[in-house]
Amino acid sequence: MHNGGVNTEHLQVSRERLWASLQDYARFGATPEGGVTRPIFSAADQQARRRLVEDCRALGLDVQVDAAANVTAVRPGSDPDLPAIVIGSHLDSVPNGGRYDGPLGVLAALEVLRTLEERHVATRHAVALVSFTGEEATAFGTSTFGSRALAGRLPDVAGNLLPDGRSVRRALADCGGDWSALPALAAGFRPPACFLELHIEQGRRLEGAGQALGVVSGVVGIHRQRIVFRGEAGHAGTTAMAERHDALRAASRLVLAVAALPGRVAADDPVATATVGFLQVTPNTPNVIPGAVDLVTDLRSASPELLAAQAAGVEDAAHEAAAAEGVSAEVTVMLDQAPIQFDARVRAAMGEAVRSLGGAGRELASQAGHDAVHMASLAPAGMLFLRCKGGLSHCPDETITPEDAALGAEALLRSMLLLDSGVNFGSAPDSRQAY
Amino acid sequence: MHNGGVNTEHLQVSRERLWASLQDYARFGATPEGGVTRPIFSAADQQARRRLVEDCRALGLDVQVDAAANVTAVRPGSDPDLPAIVIGSHLDSVPNGGRYDGPLGVLAALEVLRTLEERHVATRHAVALVSFTGEEATAFGTSTFGSRALAGRLPDVAGNLLPDGRSVRRALADCGGDWSALPALAAGFRPPACFLELHIEQGRRLEGAGQALGVVSGVVGIHRQRIVFRGEAGHAGTTAMAERHDALRAASRLVLAVAALPGRVAADDPVATATVGFLQVTPNTPNVIPGAVDLVTDLRSASPELLAAQAAGVEDAAHEAAAAEGVSAEVTVMLDQAPIQFDARVRAAMGEAVRSLGGAGRELASQAGHDAVHMASLAPAGMLFLRCKGGLSHCPDETITPEDAALGAEALLRSMLLLDSGVNFGSAPDSRQAY
Repeated sequence: MHNGGVNTEHLQVSRERLWASLQDYARFGATPEGGVTRPIFSAADQQARRRLVEDCRALGLDVQVDAAANVTAVRPGSDPDLPAIVIGSHLDSVPNGGRYDGPLGVLAALEVLRTLEERHVATRHAVALVSFTGEEATAFGTSTFGSRALAGRLPDVAGNLLPDGRSVRRALADCGGDWSALPALAAGFRPPACFLELHIEQGRRLEGAGQALGVVSGVVGIHRQRIVFRGEAGHAGTTAMAERHDALRAASRLVLAVAALPGRVAADDPVATATVGFLQVTPNTPNVIPGAVDLVTDLRSASPELLAAQAAGVEDAAHEAAAAEGVSAEVTVMLDQAPIQFDARVRAAMGEAVRSLGGAGRELASQAGHDAVHMASLAPAGMLFLRCKGGLSHCPDETITPEDAALGAEALLRSMLLLDSGVNFGSAPDSRQAY
Repeated sequence: MHNGGVNTEHLQVSRERLWASLQDYARFGATPEGGVTRPIFSAADQQARRRLVEDCRALGLDVQVDAAANVTAVRPGSDPDLPAIVIGSHLDSVPNGGRYDGPLGVLAALEVLRTLEERHVATRHAVALVSFTGEEATAFGTSTFGSRALAGRLPDVAGNLLPDGRSVRRALADCGGDWSALPALAAGFRPPACFLELHIEQGRRLEGAGQALGVVSGVVGIHRQRIVFRGEAGHAGTTAMAERHDALRAASRLVLAVAALPGRVAADDPVATATVGFLQVTPNTPNVIPGAVDLVTDLRSASPELLAAQAAGVEDAAHEAAAAEGVSAEVTVMLDQAPIQFDARVRAAMGEAVRSLGGAGRELASQAGHDAVHMASLAPAGMLFLRCKGGLSHCPDETITPEDAALGAEALLRSMLLLDSGVNFGSAPDSRQAY
């Protein structure tokens, strides 16, 4: 490739600068164990957002914060009629999570923009960095907050409360967003030429294959249910064992039933999982029988049918557990995200980019949801996976190497340049047909 | 009885005034469901404390706040050489608890003092009202904070944290106490002549027998263990089911095993109970496999042997659950309180007082711990139980009637007057020999 006199085949990102950025952002919400706690709208999230705005402005980019508080920084292209190529990920983390799940994709995008600026590379399309608001699941009922907002898929959680007591509406405003302007944001959103996201794999397949990079073929479906068991709070000493309506006993039965679901109803899908990660007891004090338990189940499968079978299994198990303990169970669906496949042209460009860097360009399915799932409903989208040590993520031990990080950023840069120069995105995106 | 010209047999408390006080104090920490949330050291606790100090000062009493933040108000007796008769209970509540568990005993004591003042009744002993700090169990590891402090039985929880992030040391100081002065408080505490507490039954025995009042024979033993399961946090989508070390799955096994314990190892004790009322998941987010669970078991029995058998059962079940899920379990004893019997002289006086009010003076064991247990290690002690509707307590539906409340205050008044005039408390208290 040649571009304004620059041989883009030999464009290299700065490994040192990228690594320094990754460690710089890991300060925000740093935990003693070496990870980060940076949930959506937290003080640490706000610190990271402000830092990103500063870094992008220092690069001379136009920075905008939209109604969903997504941060976007645009570098203009040579053809102002073309939509932008958008690259990015998210900066929030789960509680006591790792340094790279999300920030890798945002800071690799920043490194791409820094490299383009430094080498004076012109692109046909504008190139926009995006940092989406709140990709991780929250107790208030959403994940991928920012990309859902763009896709018009955000449920009404405005009045739901954060752990610090603020409403979502208020916390969003504190980060520069505006709940009442979300419908206009989705309606007026101009689809980009394409969306590209670099993310850690959060699994062991690349490590096992000795590959730093893989191209993501698609994403498993995710089904989340909230189950509220309501029994009767009472004194732990004076309520006879036979007279109890203990919500935690019912919840415990359900937790064990959920763990058995993949083997029982989804044995045909090797990537099927079932988890209870959130469980809250009320009133939660040692001498009171639990009057209520609120929990969330997380089911995943590459097959829509097996996902539905697991969801039905949760509902049945919840009602059986409630009946066994004399409590009530209320089951509501919080999230029902069908499996998708990414755009073939984006996957092809990513495969070529990875191979140009010496990789195999192997394709693999994602077992985790990502902002790219929602972007795929708006534009051709694709993802690159980077190997992480032991497949660990959502924990302080989540680790990548500086060399791999730089390879990832270079693959993102090359994929973007290939798509900028070689692909006509005029036709309707084929990924709108999610299966 | 005659006292300074007043016929104390016909002394009556004011039902209206007592009921108004009970409803007045229920404002502090009032919940929408009609109960109260007034945990130890909370803002609502402080409001109730301030109100009590005002009410006692308005009565012309000398009010003191000791190093454990216990509030005491003294009405002098005619013989300054005699120790005081102490009457009272506590003002704190469990989260989302009721209006009467604790405040009944404090405000009945206030009503007793108001009646004595109003009718100009002189007593030989001084009569002191006490409101103990933090009777209810807390997540930071104590219950009966204030009475334990007097008895020199408070564990070192100074650095433990409250839900609002303050240390116990700091929160105690905020309420007028002083952690560093607690040893001196216990060492210098002058045992009272006796301690009397009126409390709701928190059970259905009096209601079932058609009696408003009962005399408490003794208190079941309580054994509390904290169990921490530690597994491995990981991504709920990318960690294969077979590779998980899920702390919540282990905790769920234990919850069910605990529920089965009384029937399995303590079937000889009809009042034996076993409860998991507190359980906290870390990190507690829907898409992360629980890395740790912290829970507290509460075991009760009238028999020391059966209590020990249940405790051993919890420990075995915790290790079995941990082994089954590939996690670790750490079991520590938070509380080990032996069953006790109350002082025979106090029980006799209370029985006589109840019968003088038309009751049967029936004796019954308490299935809940109380401040009177610790006071019994310092002085002759006893308790009166008042029936509560449906036996409900520790919940907003905890209810008594104004008529019963007044009967309870009158029984407290008459017990106190009988002990003031008729009993020589010079000998060692027989309740020091807890069985």
